[in-house]
Amino acid sequence: MSSEYPDEWDPLSEPPSKRYAKFNEVEGLKVWVEEDEKVLWIRFNRPHRLNAITQAGYNALHGILDMLLLDRQIRVVVLSGEGKGFSSGLDFDSANKAPGPDHKTLFFNQRKYSLLPLKFRTIPQPVISLMKGKIVGSGLAYALSADVRIADPTLSISSGANRMGLGGTDIALGWLLPRLCGWSATSEILLTFRWLDAERCLRSGLVSTIVPADKLDDEGRKMAKDMLELSHLGLIVTKMNLNAVAEGASMRSAITAEDTAQIFAGSNPEAAVINERLKRNVQKGRVGSKI
Amino acid sequence: MSSEYPDEWDPLSEPPSKRYAKFNEVEGLKVWVEEDEKVLWIRFNRPHRLNAITQAGYNALHGILDMLLLDRQIRVVVLSGEGKGFSSGLDFDSANKAPGPDHKTLFFNQRKYSLLPLKFRTIPQPVISLMKGKIVGSGLAYALSADVRIADPTLSISSGANRMGLGGTDIALGWLLPRLCGWSATSEILLTFRWLDAERCLRSGLVSTIVPADKLDDEGRKMAKDMLELSHLGLIVTKMNLNAVAEGASMRSAITAEDTAQIFAGSNPEAAVINERLKRNVQKGRVGSKI
Amino acid sequence: MSSEYPDEWDPLSEPPSKRYAKFNEVEGLKVWVEEDEKVLWIRFNRPHRLNAITQAGYNALHGILDMLLLDRQIRVVVLSGEGKGFSSGLDFDSANKAPGPDHKTLFFNQRKYSLLPLKFRTIPQPVISLMKGKIVGSGLAYALSADVRIADPTLSISSGANRMGLGGTDIALGWLLPRLCGWSATSEILLTFRWLDAERCLRSGLVSTIVPADKLDDEGRKMAKDMLELSHLGLIVTKMNLNAVAEGASMRSAITAEDTAQIFAGSNPEAAVINERLKRNVQKGRVGSKI
Repeated sequence: MSSEYPDEWDPLSEPPSKRYAKFNEVEGLKVWVEEDEKVLWIRFNRPHRLNAITQAGYNALHGILDMLLLDRQIRVVVLSGEGKGFSSGLDFDSANKAPGPDHKTLFFNQRKYSLLPLKFRTIPQPVISLMKGKIVGSGLAYALSADVRIADPTLSISSGANRMGLGGTDIALGWLLPRLCGWSATSEILLTFRWLDAERCLRSGLVSTIVPADKLDDEGRKMAKDMLELSHLGLIVTKMNLNAVAEGASMRSAITAEDTAQIFAGSNPEAAVINERLKRNVQKGRVGSKI
Repeated sequence: MSSEYPDEWDPLSEPPSKRYAKFNEVEGLKVWVEEDEKVLWIRFNRPHRLNAITQAGYNALHGILDMLLLDRQIRVVVLSGEGKGFSSGLDFDSANKAPGPDHKTLFFNQRKYSLLPLKFRTIPQPVISLMKGKIVGSGLAYALSADVRIADPTLSISSGANRMGLGGTDIALGWLLPRLCGWSATSEILLTFRWLDAERCLRSGLVSTIVPADKLDDEGRKMAKDMLELSHLGLIVTKMNLNAVAEGASMRSAITAEDTAQIFAGSNPEAAVINERLKRNVQKGRVGSKI
Repeated sequence: MSSEYPDEWDPLSEPPSKRYAKFNEVEGLKVWVEEDEKVLWIRFNRPHRLNAITQAGYNALHGILDMLLLDRQIRVVVLSGEGKGFSSGLDFDSANKAPGPDHKTLFFNQRKYSLLPLKFRTIPQPVISLMKGKIVGSGLAYALSADVRIADPTLSISSGANRMGLGGTDIALGWLLPRLCGWSATSEILLTFRWLDAERCLRSGLVSTIVPADKLDDEGRKMAKDMLELSHLGLIVTKMNLNAVAEGASMRSAITAEDTAQIFAGSNPEAAVINERLKRNVQKGRVGSKI
């Protein structure tokens, strides 16, 4: 799957349901579109292997994220797992088995897994992760690269890599975890083999809410719909502005970026449509609050 | 209200209760001084409009904060709202209604609202926000620009701007919220129209405590008095040093700033007075701990 | 105690139990080694003075941390207090009593206390703090400089310095506290004389868990053993990578540092040993999870 953009490539030439269909043919992934071509679901789909990811799976994720980068139709992405788990990360049976310590090969193998979190943060679509079961390694990294996380009570998370004699800081976990569950919990699970269970994930703020296992998909669907209530540009600039702050933007520069983005988004015709819809819904009592 | 400093301006020439009195004449604001001219109360006061802020109100806030910047008498500021709410942000009836997408006008309108959080963070006085009811937009931004927040059980917060087709990251919210309630909750409420209620504000650490609605002012008064226990310079350098860390100071530079500030504050005569008072109170059993 | 490294200094020439024995002779400190020379325990030991630290104690801490910096045998450090408290910080009876405001003397006195947190963060060994009782000042600073914290129910923390007319931001507290318990709680306790009790320390994520007072040492011992399960290099790179993120590393640079560290740690023979042990333990059912 190439990530090049041919000259004739026009993302509007076919609907997302067709464009992303080819990733459905990849073993271990289910990919489909909902909400009138606006929400892309990506589901890890090797439940007999705890949804471990093969090399083909990583390649497909790169392909999907490369397409999402300039996709002007898909507005929200939902990331989930088939069966009882989300993903247990790398399938070691699919990993490079070349003998000997060839550091260059090891480096590029690792980059294939470790650069995906950057791509998740760079696409303009907010990502919702539906977390459940034991999640480790790259599976955990991608769940945490999302913007919002919903869990079921079976969730527990751990580094995974440190069990193999490596560091606990693996595939962006060292950057993501402190932002999501604080420094103490991060240090505890990355410096030991311990697990952070659903309750501590909730208490530390890592997940927004915990719902019964059979409601997890529904809750993700509801969150995606709620995101579609915003204007498309409003959604995009919100994710981009939060990224800038996560990367260390000063208060002053964050305010300036917000100011210009508000005028940029607000002067787009869609904003007026949203605004009118809001006023009508308020008048009809369809939204709970007059604010 | 001018923010210029005339050559003859001497902040000590009249007491704060007189200096800030003119802001009481502004529609929608109540401003008064307590604790022997040391604590300034600012109260949004248009309860029939959920304390929405008019252009005159924003202008007055700029004027107040400009005066506080070099005010050597006021040591603590309390920010609150009349009636059942704190503030619902911009009163749209007072906003610029010039037709057409004049981006320059929109930009300077927005700057009037968005630069106030920077001024709240720059004044030497710690600010205590008394949060209640539904708070959105610039109202929320100013509540979060405070150093400490106390809430009553009616509190719930949301961006507001995204309901109008704009981004959720508005008036410094994208910089303030992640620091106060973490990334997951921030992303959830800025990427949807959802509300963060009092319980989640407490759990995430955004507010220090929740007290019954009829105790909110008392609790703010108590917190202000507790701050007056510190030496004046001690209070100032604490806020300034925390600002530097919030803006990304390294551990090494933060320590150096603390070290010099401690000697600066400690060699001021007031420090010895505080220290003596502490010793007397310990001897008389007036403070709970010998530490 | 010199922190110089003589040319002939070879950290392997004698076991840690002998090398660190001299610090046991310092009044107010107990220092010993556990787990086959791999875990160093440092215990504040002046319970009749709430484990306040004398000048000799600070000097010894500098000496210990200087030795740990290049110590290739000690893998984990446990920091604790004798009796009912951890440490109440500086023993003022031991502080410089030179009359008059000699700022240079004050500065270097302060540096002796304030540079230790940097050394705690720079040594390659993760540090576990066992927190209890009322902890203030440099005692609090060192407890918070650890990687992981366990508490008993008697814990409560406060700045201490602000009680003496100084700022609340003291000895790295302004840098450490916001990372560990969030901005609201930090501002509240540094801008007042208030205490953060064990329950709020747990809720805010500052401590990992609260255990009964008589189980605190056991829990620290268990955590240290859990850390020894990782490969030695895995442990080191995890602490170092988390430090880089705490100091503001971008997501991209954090990932690059992780990638190279994983190959560095993974190609060390110890990693293969750990990996084999893991596989055997999984087969024998000795570890709870197949992941």
